[in-house]
Amino acid sequence: MTQSRDMSSAVVAVGNELLIGKTVDTNGSWLSEKLTDLGVPVAGRWVTGDDPGLIQGCIKDALEKADIVIVTGGLGPTSDDLTRPAVADLYRRKLIEDPVLVQGLQDRFSAMGYDSLPQRNLVQAKVPEGAIVIDNKEGTAPGLIIEDAGRAVILLPGVPREMKLIFDLKVKEYINDQFRSQLIPILEKTFNTSGIPESLLADETARYIDKFPRGVSVAFLPGLKGVSLRITTPDADGQGLARLSLCEDVLMPVIAPYFYSMGTTDIVDTLASLLLSAKKSLAVGESCTGGLISKRITDRPGSSRYFRGGIIAYDVETKSGVLGIEKKIIATKGVVSQEVASLLAERSAGLMNADFGIGITGVAGPGVGSDDVPVGTVCHAIFGDGRVQTFQNVFGGNREAVRTRAAQAALFSFFQMLTNKLD
Amino acid sequence: MTQSRDMSSAVVAVGNELLIGKTVDTNGSWLSEKLTDLGVPVAGRWVTGDDPGLIQGCIKDALEKADIVIVTGGLGPTSDDLTRPAVADLYRRKLIEDPVLVQGLQDRFSAMGYDSLPQRNLVQAKVPEGAIVIDNKEGTAPGLIIEDAGRAVILLPGVPREMKLIFDLKVKEYINDQFRSQLIPILEKTFNTSGIPESLLADETARYIDKFPRGVSVAFLPGLKGVSLRITTPDADGQGLARLSLCEDVLMPVIAPYFYSMGTTDIVDTLASLLLSAKKSLAVGESCTGGLISKRITDRPGSSRYFRGGIIAYDVETKSGVLGIEKKIIATKGVVSQEVASLLAERSAGLMNADFGIGITGVAGPGVGSDDVPVGTVCHAIFGDGRVQTFQNVFGGNREAVRTRAAQAALFSFFQMLTNKLD
Repeated sequence: MTQSRDMSSAVVAVGNELLIGKTVDTNGSWLSEKLTDLGVPVAGRWVTGDDPGLIQGCIKDALEKADIVIVTGGLGPTSDDLTRPAVADLYRRKLIEDPVLVQGLQDRFSAMGYDSLPQRNLVQAKVPEGAIVIDNKEGTAPGLIIEDAGRAVILLPGVPREMKLIFDLKVKEYINDQFRSQLIPILEKTFNTSGIPESLLADETARYIDKFPRGVSVAFLPGLKGVSLRITTPDADGQGLARLSLCEDVLMPVIAPYFYSMGTTDIVDTLASLLLSAKKSLAVGESCTGGLISKRITDRPGSSRYFRGGIIAYDVETKSGVLGIEKKIIATKGVVSQEVASLLAERSAGLMNADFGIGITGVAGPGVGSDDVPVGTVCHAIFGDGRVQTFQNVFGGNREAVRTRAAQAALFSFFQMLTNKLD
Repeated sequence: MTQSRDMSSAVVAVGNELLIGKTVDTNGSWLSEKLTDLGVPVAGRWVTGDDPGLIQGCIKDALEKADIVIVTGGLGPTSDDLTRPAVADLYRRKLIEDPVLVQGLQDRFSAMGYDSLPQRNLVQAKVPEGAIVIDNKEGTAPGLIIEDAGRAVILLPGVPREMKLIFDLKVKEYINDQFRSQLIPILEKTFNTSGIPESLLADETARYIDKFPRGVSVAFLPGLKGVSLRITTPDADGQGLARLSLCEDVLMPVIAPYFYSMGTTDIVDTLASLLLSAKKSLAVGESCTGGLISKRITDRPGSSRYFRGGIIAYDVETKSGVLGIEKKIIATKGVVSQEVASLLAERSAGLMNADFGIGITGVAGPGVGSDDVPVGTVCHAIFGDGRVQTFQNVFGGNREAVRTRAAQAALFSFFQMLTNKLD
């Protein structure tokens, strides 16, 4: 991603809450991704506190590296919101009350049932002289663009929802309009895989990646849901898409056994498409994941069209009482066993009249593992078309990591069954 | 948090993945919180790319503001890991191979079944002359401390698990030992509330907070699980704890109806204590939250001692088939109704032989709301001791926000029942 080019950007996140670490700066990474996609690479990011001197210092440093500086936070109505006056002062511009903003604030508070506009909100209608004002449909702090010497400092609210809306609706367009001739968009394709560690995926793909055309960069992004392989290329010559397609054609046969989706598509989205087109339904029986698989499936709107529901059989009595799993089987095979996983899958599907069932049981930890069944051991099973296939893994990491990895492994096995990739 | 003091710190996070926004800088906020707790306020944070010049520039800028600069990332074995040589160059120190580190790497790879140490890992045994080396028990990149002119630049790996372990085991101790006389610890108490919006909580507490002793700061931290109220004070005089206790005594009667825990204690932890001490068990029947409540309860290790399980009755057939909720009731009262919520609670508890039941049904959105039951409408019910209490809310935000808020509201109602705060 480091290449010589003219245009670049920077992000300054303002807020004491960020500096004391109580809030994670998600705005910075969100904006970085958007700016990179727009073709304005990010030269650096700053996190600073609610202090005019610190804010000004960061903006000055940022302007040394970047043509576009986005500042988030500190635009609220209270006394510790200091970005607006700090920037006005930096550019030696007066803060002037904008009558359109005042009217907007009055309308907003009137709609909420207030008789009058709270005095403290009036400060949010004051803008540095000459600034471009961007309406905030979700809140009281407008976005502001201050142009100076061919560069732009763009102030956005710190509330992520408001910041994102203003950026997507207006800032993107502004950057495109003002800096179009200097932008070199970066194109990318991301391949999401599951069931293979980063190092092995890197080994298996190495000799193909070595032959990639110049200008294509590769990154392996490991996470608890698998490893994503991202290829990127700058599109200065208009051939970027062709280059990426060429690489995709080479990569795909190699990664096919592990591949489940492109880009930001979660595996539950892929499963949704498959289930909807096959007009089939799913039920789950979860033990160690305790609802995580159901939660992930229902994260997706419209999942009631193919998801019947789940039985969270967290204790032995529920496994036997609700799902009729014989206590003798649990006693002889062990509660963490491929047999119990099979029965969780099959009985859940039966009870909820679903075409497919996923069953899962394991030791998420910490503690209560044994020599035979160490912490991290998870069995899962996929039931469908009258048969069951079972899997056993030992996952590393803490309780959350084990549960996340186990849920993903089960969803991935189900994906493989639906796409006929299981034996 | 801005007060005049001598000691301060800064954090520099290194990595192209951070700059292009594909990875969120969670290390920065984690370190900021730890440093603040240690009494070394964070003067600023930087995020930069894998480039020696950029890394050196950020460290120089950071040293202008801070006595302790922590740099994370760029200590790996590959060609884009450039923090080590950049820092050595900045201080004009040679990189010298550390025989103890070489031996450690050899032992590590030998334990993993390798015949010899991969050549590319050998670079991780090279340290700037005179640096203090901190062993990394979780990975191959050691921590490094470079002392110069009374300040310290501390290099830590970018992998969060490794970074945290090294910080907790060694860096904390180092800072305490080296800078003890200059540290002023910041003490804090955080009160977690649910069921009241930030503005109302601020209003209700305002006249008590106005009387807080000097040196105590207050912050309201709103989130999808409620609003936390944090009070902090520097403990230069040894009276910090007394000041905070005084404030707690004043605050608690006011916030009691909404309060459920202190600090990092999640409401599921509070519920766990209550259920364990009462020797009672819980089951849930979830519709719109789709497993989220069960997942949250089972996030906690040992939850099988009081959590029987859940029925994710995501579709009407499951509600009637598994829980025996009469279709006539669903048709007349509506699937999103206090009646259905009651039955989800009661029947789940009955089926799983639990003392208590939580039931929840709603429209998480987007779409498929109606005039009577708009998107965001959620009914929940708490069953116990032979009776049911029901609640209806309309939550704002997207699907994830509605589901998170709804789950929290149900858990909070259950907390209120267990603590006899419901009528």
